[in-house]
Amino acid sequence: MGGQCYLACPMTAWLDRVEVVLVRPETPANVGATCRSLRNFGLSRLCVVGSEGITAHPLARAVAHACEDLLDGARLCATLDEALAGHVFAVGTANRVRKGKLPPLEGPETVFPELASMASRGDCALVFGPESTGLTDAELARCARLLRLPTAVDQPSLNLSHAVLLAARECWLQGSGEKVEEPSEPQGEAPTHAEFGLLLERIERLMVGNGFRPYAGDMELFRLAARRALLRGRFERRDLRTLLTIVKNLERPQGRN
Amino acid sequence: MGGQCYLACPMTAWLDRVEVVLVRPETPANVGATCRSLRNFGLSRLCVVGSEGITAHPLARAVAHACEDLLDGARLCATLDEALAGHVFAVGTANRVRKGKLPPLEGPETVFPELASMASRGDCALVFGPESTGLTDAELARCARLLRLPTAVDQPSLNLSHAVLLAARECWLQGSGEKVEEPSEPQGEAPTHAEFGLLLERIERLMVGNGFRPYAGDMELFRLAARRALLRGRFERRDLRTLLTIVKNLERPQGRN
Repeated sequence: MGGQCYLACPMTAWLDRVEVVLVRPETPANVGATCRSLRNFGLSRLCVVGSEGITAHPLARAVAHACEDLLDGARLCATLDEALAGHVFAVGTANRVRKGKLPPLEGPETVFPELASMASRGDCALVFGPESTGLTDAELARCARLLRLPTAVDQPSLNLSHAVLLAARECWLQGSGEKVEEPSEPQGEAPTHAEFGLLLERIERLMVGNGFRPYAGDMELFRLAARRALLRGRFERRDLRTLLTIVKNLERPQGRN
Repeated sequence: MGGQCYLACPMTAWLDRVEVVLVRPETPANVGATCRSLRNFGLSRLCVVGSEGITAHPLARAVAHACEDLLDGARLCATLDEALAGHVFAVGTANRVRKGKLPPLEGPETVFPELASMASRGDCALVFGPESTGLTDAELARCARLLRLPTAVDQPSLNLSHAVLLAARECWLQGSGEKVEEPSEPQGEAPTHAEFGLLLERIERLMVGNGFRPYAGDMELFRLAARRALLRGRFERRDLRTLLTIVKNLERPQGRN
């Protein structure tokens, strides 16, 4: 388990596919501590959404002791959609879910094997929300799976860098297992977050044009439900093309099929 | 695994026997974050050695969000010996051990079952050193077992509150297991750290009076070796009484037996 082994083991290839995404982190020290959480368990990719300048904050750098390179190399994005655009799988973290329209909370035992499997198909994200509020429903809805890290007590929720530490450790343990199970599910090219987003937009536009009225007039609620439904599947890119073909067909003026 | 269960489960009784001891912590924020590590995994006892005033520092309180009671309730000690005086078992944490005279480093899989077992006999301690240097050899020698928390890379070492988090989680997992194995070893009353200390002092005084010259004139090295030897065993209090009887006998002027 020493540092030498880490560099030589092929098992770590999949860890390079996992990016930790901090959404609007509030505390520079937590961003610095998060870098240590990553490094200690073999992860190397950090993305920060919002919180402009936080990775350059002196406190972040001081706490990131010996991991300043992770701060310097962090990808900076304005929105979660931008951060996830090229990813094929995103896991959001939450302590509880307030709306039934969101995916259910799952434990590490189901989430991390799937993450390891999806990493063979493209970049994956582990998404963490702001310290004080966590991810919004709209942000959680952008994640294919929602992870709850088990603790003895729910409150206070885990500190941000603590949550990252436990998740990073699960990634590392998953990688150091005897072997990653070959999933029986399809292993073709996976669609990205951005491709899903385009499909969802077109479906929504189509339906609205078709006179769709969402329940209680709440289009956001419908979006949550639509994302939840689509992200539950393990589509290949060609499946998405099929769905897009259907949408394109429906977009044509009626009677022209 | 929810908060309700936590309060009702008898398994948590042993968690109340575990005290986390921070030796000369340097950063108030780390002491605050440590409180969250404890609470999240059902531990409730904190002891701080040295670092006067650190638990009252505003940064410690701010970071200990919703766990300020653990800061207020922390036991404050001047020395590690004072902290451990009433404990029957201490686990020290280390990333590497520099001297062969110290106990070997062990992983969580052996340390925590033994900790759970020893907790049935009295108070136990999990001891963490200063952020920048870790525990000294003399401090490590006061611990019956040395724990190394596995990580992907050794450097940088785990942040203090991160190390406490992983150790606290192991305690909690140990307690939530099907059942704690009944150890086949003796389960009589366990001697305390202070009782061990008195025995060691008397042995040393006796040997010095008897003309003992430690290797390379290094009495501290001998102390490490003696502690290592005595702490490897799982003595009952009556065993210590037997050892003390032997020492007392040897203390008598020769020929008076």
